Amino acid sequence: MWRFHMPTEVFFGEGVVLGRGELLTKFGKKALIVTGRSSSKKNGSLDDVIGALEKFGIEYAVFDEVEENPSFNSVRKAVKEYRGIGFDFVVGIGGGSPLDFAKALAILLVEDVDVEDLYTENRRWRAVPVVAVPTTAGTGSEVTQLSVLTDDLGNKRGCQTVFPALAFLDPRYVYHLSEDLTLTTGVDALCHAVEGFLSKRATPPSDALALHAMKITFENLPKALRGVNEARRNMLIASNLAGMVISQTGTTIAHALGYPLTTEKSVRHGAATGMVLPFVIEVMKEENPEKVHKVNEIFGGNLLVFLESLGLYKIKVDVTEDEIARWAEKAMKAKHLAHTPGAFTAEKIAKIYKEALKT
Amino acid sequence: MWRFHMPTEVFFGEGVVLGRGELLTKFGKKALIVTGRSSSKKNGSLDDVIGALEKFGIEYAVFDEVEENPSFNSVRKAVKEYRGIGFDFVVGIGGGSPLDFAKALAILLVEDVDVEDLYTENRRWRAVPVVAVPTTAGTGSEVTQLSVLTDDLGNKRGCQTVFPALAFLDPRYVYHLSEDLTLTTGVDALCHAVEGFLSKRATPPSDALALHAMKITFENLPKALRGVNEARRNMLIASNLAGMVISQTGTTIAHALGYPLTTEKSVRHGAATGMVLPFVIEVMKEENPEKVHKVNEIFGGNLLVFLESLGLYKIKVDVTEDEIARWAEKAMKAKHLAHTPGAFTAEKIAKIYKEALKT
Repeated sequence: MWRFHMPTEVFFGEGVVLGRGELLTKFGKKALIVTGRSSSKKNGSLDDVIGALEKFGIEYAVFDEVEENPSFNSVRKAVKEYRGIGFDFVVGIGGGSPLDFAKALAILLVEDVDVEDLYTENRRWRAVPVVAVPTTAGTGSEVTQLSVLTDDLGNKRGCQTVFPALAFLDPRYVYHLSEDLTLTTGVDALCHAVEGFLSKRATPPSDALALHAMKITFENLPKALRGVNEARRNMLIASNLAGMVISQTGTTIAHALGYPLTTEKSVRHGAATGMVLPFVIEVMKEENPEKVHKVNEIFGGNLLVFLESLGLYKIKVDVTEDEIARWAEKAMKAKHLAHTPGAFTAEKIAKIYKEALKT
Repeated sequence: MWRFHMPTEVFFGEGVVLGRGELLTKFGKKALIVTGRSSSKKNGSLDDVIGALEKFGIEYAVFDEVEENPSFNSVRKAVKEYRGIGFDFVVGIGGGSPLDFAKALAILLVEDVDVEDLYTENRRWRAVPVVAVPTTAGTGSEVTQLSVLTDDLGNKRGCQTVFPALAFLDPRYVYHLSEDLTLTTGVDALCHAVEGFLSKRATPPSDALALHAMKITFENLPKALRGVNEARRNMLIASNLAGMVISQTGTTIAHALGYPLTTEKSVRHGAATGMVLPFVIEVMKEENPEKVHKVNEIFGGNLLVFLESLGLYKIKVDVTEDEIARWAEKAMKAKHLAHTPGAFTAEKIAKIYKEALKT
């Protein structure tokens, strides 16, 4: 049996936040904006959202302290400040970090639980509506119910929160992304499409979206890195489609393998996952050779060669044998494994790390 | 600017109605089942729905008088019988006719207007939730907000009603479709995918779904006609994806050209559209040669040859020059034209009819 449900209403286009701002009025009269410290101020997205809220007489507060890979403690800080004040909805602006933060906060504003509970209790939470305004072309978080935060022990953990009710995608916000962010977020989108396509939870609609997202990524990510705006725009589309994919399938063991590279070695999320992915799919091939072949075919014959051509493996990470052994043990406990094709073992995972990190 | 919104929750699998019947309880305690006279009794779908409703103590009535290409008057009859009785939701079971009927009725049970008003007034209607159980692999009506009914003058007219809240797709219901219905409904799905892909309203997510639906159709429709259950199952998937496509794009002039063949010459809907489609896309080619080329490529090099190989053009229709001239004039007034690429004229449309009907 398969299921498809992706209820977010998506609008895509230049000037879309102000152009379709009237849609915000249906969510209420008081909004909490959730964003990071600086990028949404530089790329114009925060001004656009504030402009739309003011135009329609919607009161708002701004929480602009979301860090990259946000922690449970920073969520707790926002909850302490804003719970019980009667916000009707939350507007998340930024990359995956503020959007995932906003989705968790939308629940915690109205449910009297700790952020940890979202990750341990499996129930349907009440929440205020979320509006998502992505400013990177990567996570696709604007069309997923997933929220990945860093727990009190420093581990990245994902859980099911709520789908944004509305997503506004304005490609102008990604036209000035740095080369580094264009690469790492673009590779994150690529991973979502590839992992969702290869996941055991793949469905016909998710495959449709994944195949298209992979093709757009192959054709546009190299040009986006050279600063071509049309290609950057297309990568925002690819990341949105790839987000729809993982909203149905979740991610695979490749994501779990990337997490310690981010939390312990400060490798950006998309790069961390992307570096291990070509070696992960070699193991997936044992169980699903046709689909792995299709992935390589879409990426010009070989996914690893494509990622190398983007300069992904210029990233150098110093690791020890002990670290790799510890990460491999940890990965074997990841819930992602249940949906990942292939017979993964701690030995195979250690080998993947060594190949990816060239140690 | 583009928009994507397809809020229906879709479940697909054998035994899904009884297996996930608990989902019906969230819609209330009193259901109106809307279906045709016979097929839902034969294929087991009506028994499954009644079984699920009874299992969860939901009261129900059955309206089983929906004819093929239902008229405004039969909708009025159902409204007269069931409005004001307090039905909490409607369950539509069958091909496109009962599903489109159910979506219109869901509004008319709670809005004090005539069915004609749905087609003339452009506003957001209140409605009770709709659950859709398709039993043909064709219309994709279970995942669209569109409703096509036949008006008091005998014209087929489409309008925006409501998306079903829930769709249950059980492939067992299509395993015993006649060869004729397998062909005509399968070709309807094909038309939705092709027309949505070529529509001026196509978007990246609708293209993703259309490309996948076209590929599944090319690979499976010939086998479905030979009675292979796996292929029939795959055609139910293709028709679902193609429904998602037209929920975003609507259809094109090909649908408008098919309507008089159905209303005046009794050619089944899918066949009527499919017969004109290869000639319609020749005109679309003027404006969008790349996408028309892609369509032909997916269907083995030439869409017309593929449709001929299915036996579609064995259908014989007697028409006069006058009828064709009248239909061509009418088509030039169809609202579909605004979203159809290519410079259509009454002359070109008359030529399309002559080519399609070999007159």
